[in-house]
Amino acid sequence: MAKKNQLGVTPLSEDVSAWYNELVFKAELADRGPAKGTMVIRPYGYRIWELLQSQLDQRFKDTGHVNASFPLLIPMSYLQREADHVEGFAPELAVVTHGGGKELDEPLVVRPTSETVIGEMYSRWISSYRDLPVLINAWNNVVRWELRPRIFLRTTEFLWQEGHTAHADEDEAMEETLRMFDVYVEFALNVAAIPMVKGEKTPGERFAGAVRTFTIEGMMQDGKALQSGTSHYLGQNFAKAFDITFQDENNELQHVHTTSWGMSTRMIGAVILAHGDDAGLVLPPRLAPIQIVIVPIGRGEQAEAPLAKCRELAAQLEGLGVRAHVDDRDASPGFKFNDWELKGVPLRVELGPRDLEAGHVLVAQRVGERDDKGRPVKETVEFEEFVTGAPERLDAYHDQLVARATAFRDERSGVADDWDTFAELVGRGFAYALHCGEPSCEDDIKAETSATPRCISTEDGFAGEGTCIRCDRPSVYGHRVAFARAY
Amino acid sequence: MAKKNQLGVTPLSEDVSAWYNELVFKAELADRGPAKGTMVIRPYGYRIWELLQSQLDQRFKDTGHVNASFPLLIPMSYLQREADHVEGFAPELAVVTHGGGKELDEPLVVRPTSETVIGEMYSRWISSYRDLPVLINAWNNVVRWELRPRIFLRTTEFLWQEGHTAHADEDEAMEETLRMFDVYVEFALNVAAIPMVKGEKTPGERFAGAVRTFTIEGMMQDGKALQSGTSHYLGQNFAKAFDITFQDENNELQHVHTTSWGMSTRMIGAVILAHGDDAGLVLPPRLAPIQIVIVPIGRGEQAEAPLAKCRELAAQLEGLGVRAHVDDRDASPGFKFNDWELKGVPLRVELGPRDLEAGHVLVAQRVGERDDKGRPVKETVEFEEFVTGAPERLDAYHDQLVARATAFRDERSGVADDWDTFAELVGRGFAYALHCGEPSCEDDIKAETSATPRCISTEDGFAGEGTCIRCDRPSVYGHRVAFARAY
Repeated sequence: MAKKNQLGVTPLSEDVSAWYNELVFKAELADRGPAKGTMVIRPYGYRIWELLQSQLDQRFKDTGHVNASFPLLIPMSYLQREADHVEGFAPELAVVTHGGGKELDEPLVVRPTSETVIGEMYSRWISSYRDLPVLINAWNNVVRWELRPRIFLRTTEFLWQEGHTAHADEDEAMEETLRMFDVYVEFALNVAAIPMVKGEKTPGERFAGAVRTFTIEGMMQDGKALQSGTSHYLGQNFAKAFDITFQDENNELQHVHTTSWGMSTRMIGAVILAHGDDAGLVLPPRLAPIQIVIVPIGRGEQAEAPLAKCRELAAQLEGLGVRAHVDDRDASPGFKFNDWELKGVPLRVELGPRDLEAGHVLVAQRVGERDDKGRPVKETVEFEEFVTGAPERLDAYHDQLVARATAFRDERSGVADDWDTFAELVGRGFAYALHCGEPSCEDDIKAETSATPRCISTEDGFAGEGTCIRCDRPSVYGHRVAFARAY
Repeated sequence: MAKKNQLGVTPLSEDVSAWYNELVFKAELADRGPAKGTMVIRPYGYRIWELLQSQLDQRFKDTGHVNASFPLLIPMSYLQREADHVEGFAPELAVVTHGGGKELDEPLVVRPTSETVIGEMYSRWISSYRDLPVLINAWNNVVRWELRPRIFLRTTEFLWQEGHTAHADEDEAMEETLRMFDVYVEFALNVAAIPMVKGEKTPGERFAGAVRTFTIEGMMQDGKALQSGTSHYLGQNFAKAFDITFQDENNELQHVHTTSWGMSTRMIGAVILAHGDDAGLVLPPRLAPIQIVIVPIGRGEQAEAPLAKCRELAAQLEGLGVRAHVDDRDASPGFKFNDWELKGVPLRVELGPRDLEAGHVLVAQRVGERDDKGRPVKETVEFEEFVTGAPERLDAYHDQLVARATAFRDERSGVADDWDTFAELVGRGFAYALHCGEPSCEDDIKAETSATPRCISTEDGFAGEGTCIRCDRPSVYGHRVAFARAY
């Protein structure tokens, strides 16, 4: 068993998995619920979710979407109307068989996703081309039975948003699918500070019922991929299953084309695993419940004046829209420093009697320069300069996290044109390789290396044709496929 | 069957129940879900909920609460630990018996409320007086089987918030119970424009498991009461059932005292039934998705300049935090006026070529002065004056709705000291009467008049003692009880 740090968490550098499992509890992000696989998101973790929600929701509204609420309980027969969909979700369903003290005539499933019930509602609401497009999102909870649950990453219940749109034709629906895919890529980078690997899923990895699925995949610090958001073009599959039709401008009856797209509380897991370190969480400032923690230094009467100044600074920071917190607990500075490091607060400010006299604070970054003993190098900054410069300082810190995560991702990624290189790369990160597109060949690769195709990369430099990395068949996608072990 | 208006809704003045049922569909607030008793909240209705959420949540945060998320699925055995609680909720439970393709060893209930699972978590998190108070709220969905569902008022699934707090002693817990009760009263008045009747529930009407329950009851336009929010002091009932203990300052082990409090999507039903009229919804401005709708008047080329000005005004209003919308649909002004009346938009603005030339708009209030033909009297207001005065105009409109609802409530309420007066009053509103406090006597009153005790009123003027309104026993509460028929 790896040595734990002073706060009781196994170092990430020793065992990513143990570190993760211990940290989510120790940092009070989440806890296990009583029913197997369920999770409790504690206030500190839930605040991250609220910040994610508000910033993602704004992007949905800016792209013309509105929110709505659909029922949790769906008649079992609805899922059966789309063949691929029920095949994909049947093994994961939670089923309500009794309600109000009686056995139900037809069992109800707790929604694993809402394409079916929303399809039914859209069929009632849409009748003319004038009703299109329908651009609706829902923030809710879904249940998918998990045999090997892990908090945030795989839980029987999770929170998410599911967007569902209906369009007059394929072009418009594909445009929407890619628009929301781009929103996820941009959001992940600019809010969560995660440079995602992005592209289309291979047929074997598509959403159950989709024609095309686009995904963002983050690289975690154990080199594994974490699927963090998906956007699906559903074609007319659900439109036909639920009879969602409209009169077009020529008075002809057409089926709509639909899309769906989702991001979940799993994204909190991505943030933990992409940025954390041996000392605990590292939160990107735009998702940090506390962006700047201010620690007054001094004992007894000597503590009063610094504490008052700390509160004044915090109020000034709040006025600039910065989430600041004064730690006035009755505990040693060392305890507080460790605690806020564990909780991943971006900036820590110290202010003692001598600093007050000198008119400055000491600023330490959660991730930044360290001295010989591994302690953060503190910067001395005048009060006013510190306050007015805080938003910019947080932006710079965000950029620094992006640069660090990008360097890590790129260092652990590479092009593989032979099997040995491929096996070595997927052992520690992402391998970009040509592939034949056969599901059986994907299975062989998985059996041998645990790696799966994460996406067909359409980014610059990854176009290519040739022979499959694994078999003798020719490659099919015109682009390399990013393979990795995945959560 | 009552005559419907031009938009297909039975007038409220003819049949409140039919009006309500038709209006929620016609105004696109909500729809029925496929599973019995479930509801779909459509974007227009959901936007009301979002506005309610954000303004109520701010009040929770201002009083020191934080949000968290607890599991949807709760082991059946948890509910059985508090005897009154399980007795109250057992008939309403939805039960998951199968998960992941297998029958479960122990059935899980879909949460009807979360005292039990939160009690379990608090017992893990709380160990010292230093951990108290715990002040947590959750925004989520709950399921209570409904045999006679009505959208927003009684649905098998509804959205709500449930606050759950834990305290060191009874005084502090009672203070919290009353603090959140006051928050609901203030919110209902200042946001939803509903002057609530408020007080404590009689023992027979308490929440299952509570020691004391406080309620806000709105008067709907059929004279019936609608319970719109409740705050409970739970004593040590759940603390004992879930072993939530702490070491006090003297190192002695104590059980905590807990509270819970909730407001739900039912509040949207309260808004509809408290303010609406024959022409449709009447939304209080602080919950209105659109506060001001601007309708350009004119045809063909003549329409362009007014439309541009409408857009300019809307942008200026948005800049002041006013939710404005330009209705540029290809439809007649008359159609648009009826449509926005149905949807309850507080202010309607018209702007045609001549208005543009004159530099003014015509302003009509959804509720306000009417001419001989029942049409709104329009006020002529200069552009700039209109824009800068809009927030104040909306506030005045809010006050007007409060005054109207207060007058209606008071006109339909009265003190009853004899049975005939009582029966007459509860036939059309609220009767304030002395009561013996016996559940069997409450039952007799209900059997004869359909009225139930809504709350013990502690408001000015309702103190009193004497003989029960129904039997010969002496009154017990020291205050009159508000009786009414209720939803």
